[in-house]
Amino acid sequence: MAEPTLLVLNADPPPRLGRLTGKVRVEYADEETLAARLPEADVLLVWDFASDAVRLAWPGEGPRPRWVHTPSAGVDRVLCPELAVSDTVVTNARGIFEQPIAEYVAALVLAMAKDLPVTLELQRRHEWRHREGLAVAGSRAVVVGAGPIGRAVAGALRALGATTAVVGRQARPGIHGEQDLDPLLARADWVVCAAPLTQATAGMFDARRFGLMQPSTRFVNVGRGPLVVEADLLDALHKRWIAGAALDVFESEPLAPDSPVWDAPGLIVSPHMSGDTVGWRDRLSEQFVGMYELWAAGEPLPNVVDKKRGYVPMHDHSPD
Amino acid sequence: MAEPTLLVLNADPPPRLGRLTGKVRVEYADEETLAARLPEADVLLVWDFASDAVRLAWPGEGPRPRWVHTPSAGVDRVLCPELAVSDTVVTNARGIFEQPIAEYVAALVLAMAKDLPVTLELQRRHEWRHREGLAVAGSRAVVVGAGPIGRAVAGALRALGATTAVVGRQARPGIHGEQDLDPLLARADWVVCAAPLTQATAGMFDARRFGLMQPSTRFVNVGRGPLVVEADLLDALHKRWIAGAALDVFESEPLAPDSPVWDAPGLIVSPHMSGDTVGWRDRLSEQFVGMYELWAAGEPLPNVVDKKRGYVPMHDHSPD
Repeated sequence: MAEPTLLVLNADPPPRLGRLTGKVRVEYADEETLAARLPEADVLLVWDFASDAVRLAWPGEGPRPRWVHTPSAGVDRVLCPELAVSDTVVTNARGIFEQPIAEYVAALVLAMAKDLPVTLELQRRHEWRHREGLAVAGSRAVVVGAGPIGRAVAGALRALGATTAVVGRQARPGIHGEQDLDPLLARADWVVCAAPLTQATAGMFDARRFGLMQPSTRFVNVGRGPLVVEADLLDALHKRWIAGAALDVFESEPLAPDSPVWDAPGLIVSPHMSGDTVGWRDRLSEQFVGMYELWAAGEPLPNVVDKKRGYVPMHDHSPD
Repeated sequence: MAEPTLLVLNADPPPRLGRLTGKVRVEYADEETLAARLPEADVLLVWDFASDAVRLAWPGEGPRPRWVHTPSAGVDRVLCPELAVSDTVVTNARGIFEQPIAEYVAALVLAMAKDLPVTLELQRRHEWRHREGLAVAGSRAVVVGAGPIGRAVAGALRALGATTAVVGRQARPGIHGEQDLDPLLARADWVVCAAPLTQATAGMFDARRFGLMQPSTRFVNVGRGPLVVEADLLDALHKRWIAGAALDVFESEPLAPDSPVWDAPGLIVSPHMSGDTVGWRDRLSEQFVGMYELWAAGEPLPNVVDKKRGYVPMHDHSPD
């Protein structure tokens, strides 16, 4: 039997696939060659998961890979309608990003609580100005998104002593349903968005929802940019509807140098790095290699995306 | 019997002493009048605990207060040799600053782990540059200072998943003794100084100890400035002996505008605010009022400083 063909999109820097030597024929594609090379691929590894190339190339002619793996938590950049209705299995990198993103959110929340951006600006100006911080312990947080990342974020905030509610699509033990979101937003000190980007969630943080928040609320988005109506968030910041925000993801990435987002008052801008701690690419390679070995052996794959919902459901198959 | 006289040093903004109305005669002094007014005081509340006025005024003529309270954790600014050998009781604000300082240290550690100062500088320049953060979970921390603040800091770092050792003056269960300090420094990712300033600890972080640390180590000082030989720390940062540092306390405060500390590479400078969260002055007032009521009733005072050691010993009288 011929070796299966693994097509890797945008392999710079390349994944570490040494353990698969002799077990798979590895081919490479970039955004321009992807469409032409898809028919020869048994498996597609979307190594550059920030690319739209798969959405664009998938609807083309000829056979399609039987399995597409994206080494990211969100699958929104990959999941075009044609792929969604196909027989191709889509998997994600569940397990890799939870802990780093939870730490990153804790870093952002604590930085805002302790007024660290102002401290650093005063340091730049050699200016000593004592201020009072906020206590995170005893404050109230709402995490929107009840997947493994949202739950890890909630765990980190609870470890800091914040009373933390998690909101998912449907209520289940320990998780609030959508109907609780608005009242929870109205009394939260911290609102963290860690939801998947789907048709149901796009634009969910809009002027109405920022209007529900308190003037002391701070908002964090580590999900996907289009979950937030960016213009509405900027407006809420400029009008002091809320006290501050931190965005790690944006409607358009990389953020353009002339974007008004950079200079919004009380906003921390970071370049989509919340999940990326030293060694992350190696951990993603290792995860994929392990999954490939299962696939080649005919074993069931973990982290299979429910292509209708747009994310990996809970292991226990309860809705999330 | 005449009401006792409570002398308050530098009451701007004033402490809230309303509950003591009719129970005590409250008088006020500033740095210039303190020496002249000390003889009339039964109790001295050093409301501005950053002042050296008590050290300077105490050795003067006439009766001295029977009790001195400093609404701070450290008593180094108050404890002159003449006060140390006197019968006057000195108390501190144990219980107020532990949790805020622990959160502040967590904020600094996470900010350094996630490269937040660089992120904010890039934001200022409208520059998108992805970088990798460090994981705090699984890293190694050493907290120097086994009092309640050091232990609270260790608790916060452990909650973030860092393997955390605490070093005190003497070994006891869960606490390393001084003899373990140097080997612990040599393998720490994070070194946090939360020790009291005493003759034994002044200058303990010097060139030799920075030289023991790894090039990846980050150092945090939330104790007192003179625990660190500032010139040696700056040298260690400039020579990249260590990767970064954060100072909330300094040899001289406020830090002078022309101090070289402001611009040291990889250094976060904050204006002695680690313990000060919104409402802190009210909490300090309330603590003092409660202690005053005990004192007036002839009950034993809590938080009594061991004036030889220069800090409040553990409640169980084991050494710390």
